[in-house]
Order: sequence, then structure tokens, then C-alpha cells
Amino acid sequence: MQVLLVYSDKPPILFVKRDLLRASVESPLKTEEMKSLVDLKKFIPHGIVGIEFSRLSVAEYKKLKDIFNCEFYDISNQINKLRAFKSDYELSLMKQAGAIAEKVYIESMNFLQKGITEIEFGSIMFSLAQKYGHEGVLRTSSPYFEPVSWHILSGKSGCVHGQYDAPVSGIGLSPAFPNSAGRKKIKEHEPVMVDFGITYMGYQVDTTRMYCIGEPDEKFLFYYEKALSIKKKIIESIVHGASCDFLFETGKKEAEKSGIFGNYLGLGKFKKKFVGHGVGLETSEIPLIAKNSSHIIKERMTFALEPKLVIEDFGVVGIENTYVLTERGVEKLTDLSENILTVH
Amino acid sequence: MQVLLVYSDKPPILFVKRDLLRASVESPLKTEEMKSLVDLKKFIPHGIVGIEFSRLSVAEYKKLKDIFNCEFYDISNQINKLRAFKSDYELSLMKQAGAIAEKVYIESMNFLQKGITEIEFGSIMFSLAQKYGHEGVLRTSSPYFEPVSWHILSGKSGCVHGQYDAPVSGIGLSPAFPNSAGRKKIKEHEPVMVDFGITYMGYQVDTTRMYCIGEPDEKFLFYYEKALSIKKKIIESIVHGASCDFLFETGKKEAEKSGIFGNYLGLGKFKKKFVGHGVGLETSEIPLIAKNSSHIIKERMTFALEPKLVIEDFGVVGIENTYVLTERGVEKLTDLSENILTVH
Repeated sequence: MQVLLVYSDKPPILFVKRDLLRASVESPLKTEEMKSLVDLKKFIPHGIVGIEFSRLSVAEYKKLKDIFNCEFYDISNQINKLRAFKSDYELSLMKQAGAIAEKVYIESMNFLQKGITEIEFGSIMFSLAQKYGHEGVLRTSSPYFEPVSWHILSGKSGCVHGQYDAPVSGIGLSPAFPNSAGRKKIKEHEPVMVDFGITYMGYQVDTTRMYCIGEPDEKFLFYYEKALSIKKKIIESIVHGASCDFLFETGKKEAEKSGIFGNYLGLGKFKKKFVGHGVGLETSEIPLIAKNSSHIIKERMTFALEPKLVIEDFGVVGIENTYVLTERGVEKLTDLSENILTVH
Repeated sequence: MQVLLVYSDKPPILFVKRDLLRASVESPLKTEEMKSLVDLKKFIPHGIVGIEFSRLSVAEYKKLKDIFNCEFYDISNQINKLRAFKSDYELSLMKQAGAIAEKVYIESMNFLQKGITEIEFGSIMFSLAQKYGHEGVLRTSSPYFEPVSWHILSGKSGCVHGQYDAPVSGIGLSPAFPNSAGRKKIKEHEPVMVDFGITYMGYQVDTTRMYCIGEPDEKFLFYYEKALSIKKKIIESIVHGASCDFLFETGKKEAEKSGIFGNYLGLGKFKKKFVGHGVGLETSEIPLIAKNSSHIIKERMTFALEPKLVIEDFGVVGIENTYVLTERGVEKLTDLSENILTVH
């Protein structure tokens, strides 16, 4: 357990329960040892304390209220807003996560072959990613979402609706975790979508690429081109001050113009109303690029953009990169080829 | 998002936000669709509602209080107590998780070789486990603990204290996740501890085994024998009605008798006061086999027992299995060889 106390009038202190020596070496902050939360009483005698209600259980909250003679206020939104803007250091870590992604996508092509199951392929990708420094854990504070790295959706199985509140989610291994890669064997020529999250020193990037065993057929190529053109259109509209609702509508209009709106972000009642999300310490951060989103894109914000198409009885296609807006414009943090990864 | 409503006077209903058809096929319960929590208002017009405060964020709780005209009570403890007792079906799933563990431990021996890093070896084990049906996700409601499958602690690196509140935790890949396998290369003859959790259809088992590249030396064998004898002593004391405090003291006394109490469950101020924990849907459940634990072992409870020894400047050794107490006595759910897995 660690607790970070940030004062309004003096430097912050990081309290650690386990190894003070390790913490003092690894953290630039002032560190102090604590045996339990009670030890913090003398550091917070009274007053107003902000805390993240979205990242704290009711049980823990009641414990804090019993121990401390304070008023607690929810600062989840303030923290979320701070997190949306990345420093150069944070961006460098996300770029390193992106570099891991590139190696994994390329090297994994050696393992994709007819008959391999989605979960086998996903676990090999995960294994490669860890070798290159992926921390494995994808943190989130969303209560209804358990992110994992290995989303492999091949052919029709990609059209199955899972628990994730996303355009595509997959069948998973059992009803206990009804998401992501399943036991379906990957076939030749069908679209294979890989949505892979990678964490480097706590910072995540989100990516999606398409694979194909043998050459992709015309239908696959047709829809993939549409996904790329929607992504391009949205990227072209991103400037400092762009509203996320407007960006969402831009993507929607391009999908309508392309004649594939029916497939865009899911079919029928499963169509979703978001096409992008902030990313960093958590999988889903500010800004949310969604219908009616009040978020505004600003410089130093990082976000994943993921136009995805669901084609009934055929599969799912799409693309996803993580970007940052700088004074030079939109830059990719996951700078890997967007070609379909075709293996023979 | 799903919500399970359990009434006192009529059958329960499972509400699902995404695919009602899939849920109705996969669940034996009555299912209903909901668009948002507001849809549940007519199902909970007023009254007293029990909810798990340990598994609910303050932000979500406030949302519930705003929507529903109800009194909410914490039933975390009641749910935890129910979960401690496993049905035949639940035990069969845990046995299947144990069977996966056996395959992974044996097959992984083909990949252990001098110079492989801890994280590479762990990721290969994870990949094998997924191939055999490991769901990858290890759920927990503990706020200070992010469980992962791949704990690989080799030689001295096993003695590094991490964030986990456990006798051994490891160095990890970065301060952002200071636990588990790191980038240390595994050497010949040193003790290699693998603590590996596996989930099958939502149910976990916890296991620990020792590996060695080449023959383990006398020191390694000496301490490993001590860990096995402590485990045996505790197992012999487990009967319906045994107190967990008594079981903890039994292990401690055996460690003292063996002359290795200094190494038992950690060194100096990092010595822990638990040697076992319930396991099932979550990594840490009732019963907690710990100093001053008020839990009592009863038939159908499942628990992991993990006596571990830390030897300064040398490494960590230990053993862990998941067990169930039945009317026939203590049975292993992870029935794999306890020999040191030696590779040449």
C-alpha cells in the first residue's frame, strides 16, 4: 500500500508500507514509512482532503472516514483532467510502448498460421510483448471493464457481442470472461483483427492492426480502406480546440458518405457512439471522442482513435493508433505500418 | 455492465446491458435487458438493498444513491462467507485449473535454460497456460493488490521486496509495477521460484513450484525440505473446525523447531504473518490462515497454503498448493509433483 499526500502549502510525501529504501531510490519524491493508515493521522490532523472517489471502494472510504477527522471531496475529475495532458517524459514512455508494439506486430507474423486458435496467437503476442518490456497490466478505473492485451478476433467470431461496451469485443474463453480471444481456429483469407494494448513503465498505448493468412479478398480490402479513410478524415479535423463531439460527427459523416454507416462501430442496436478515447496511465482517459462529448482536444493530450467496422457473417476490420497533439499537429505514438499484415 | 438482483421472496434476475441473447444462452438465471441503471428503478421501487461495499467505488455508490430510493447495506462479508464454501461444480472447475497448472509446469521445463530472463520465462508459461484454457485474468477485490500470473523469482532477485504485501514479491519491470518477474537472467543451480495463478471459467487455483537449471545444491535442498515439512505439518492439523490462528501457529512452531524461523515468511521486519488464503473467484478469499485470524476451516472450503522461506543473498524457496477440505480430509486441487523441476 502507498499513499501520496499532496499539500497545498508544502512538498508532497509518498508513504510506503513495504520497503522504504526501495521507494526512496525509485521515487524522486520525499518518502516516509507507514505501518498502517493510522500513522498518517499526524500528517492530516484535520481539514479538507481531495481523494479519487472513482478509484476508491466504499469499504475503504468508510475506513478513511473512521480514521481521519477530515472532510473528503471527490477530485476524480480534476485528476482525470490533469492526466489528459502528458509531459515530455510521459510521451517518451508512450513512444517506447509504441516501439514495443511495432516489434510485436512484425515478429508475431512468424507465428500466425492456419489452424492456430485466437487465444494461442494472442498469448504468443503477449509473450513477445513481455520480452520487449510490456508490463502486462493494463490499469483502468472503469468499474465495468477489465482490460487485457490479447484481443484477437478472427472472421465471424469478431461479430459476437461480448461484455465490453465497445463495437467489437469477442467471445472469450468462457462466460466468466466473455471478451477477447476465444478458441476459434484462424482460417485463411478471413479478416483477423488484433487490438493490442501495451504498457511501458506504467504508460499504455492502444493499437489495432489487421492480419490475413494468404491474400485478403476484395471485401476485406474494401472495408479496410473505408476504415482508413474515416481515420484520415478525423485526424485531418484534429486541431487545438476541436470538440470531441464534432470529431465524432466527422467520422460518422465520412462513414455515411462511404456507404458503410450500417457497419460503422457495430451493427444495429449494438452500434456504439464513441470512436476514440484518451490513454496513458489508464486504458480509458480524457478525452472521449464520442457523440455529445463535451471534451475539447488540446495540445499534449494523447488519445487512441479506433474506427471499426462490423460486417455480418464475415468479420470485423479496423485500425487504431495512439496519437498526441503537439504544436506541430497530430503525431503518432504508435508509428507502425498500417498495411494489412499478410502471411503466406 | 451486468446487475444481479437477488430478491428475498422471488427468483433472481440477471440484467445485462449488451447482448441479452448471449446472456440468456450462457446463464441459467432469468435474464432481462437494461439500457442503464435507471431501467432497474421499477424492479427496486424502495426497500433495503444489500450490496458489496468492498467491490463498489464511492463514485458508483453515489450514482446508485441518486437513482434509487433505497437503503443500501454492506454485504461484502456475507458474500465472502458464502464464497468460501465451494459446490461440486465449483470444485470441478478448480480441479480443471489445477490440471492446466500441471501441464504448464511440465511443458515449461522445455523452455527454461541458462540466460533466459525471468519475464521471458514467465511469459512463456503464461502463453502455455492460455493455450490450455487459462483465462489470464486473476480477479481480486483487494484495493492494494494487482495479481498477475507470472511470478518468477530467481536467486537473489527473489529477496527484493516489492509492493505486494507477501513474504516474496520480486522486482518487476519498473517502479510502475514493482512486483513479480524482472529482467534478471536465470543462472544455473540457483533456486527459481514460480508462483503461478491460473483461472478456468472464472475459478482460480494458486500454486508454487521450484525449478533449477542443473542440480540444486545442498543449501537449496535443505531449505526446500524445511518448506515441505512445514506444509506437511500444517496439512496434518487441518480438520473441520480447525482455527486458522492455530494453523498459523502450527506452521510457525515447525519453522522454529527446524531452526529456520528467521527465514520463514520473510526476513526481519518484512516477515509476514500469513501462510495461506482462501481462493476461488478471487485470489484472496476466506479463510485467511494468519496470526490472530478468527476464521475456522470447514468442509468445502478451498485454500492455498504457501510456506515460503527467504535466504539472504541466496534466494527464495517454497511450495504452494490449493486444497479443499472434504469429509474425506484435505484433498489437493493442484495435484502435481512436488519435486524440484530440474532441467539439464
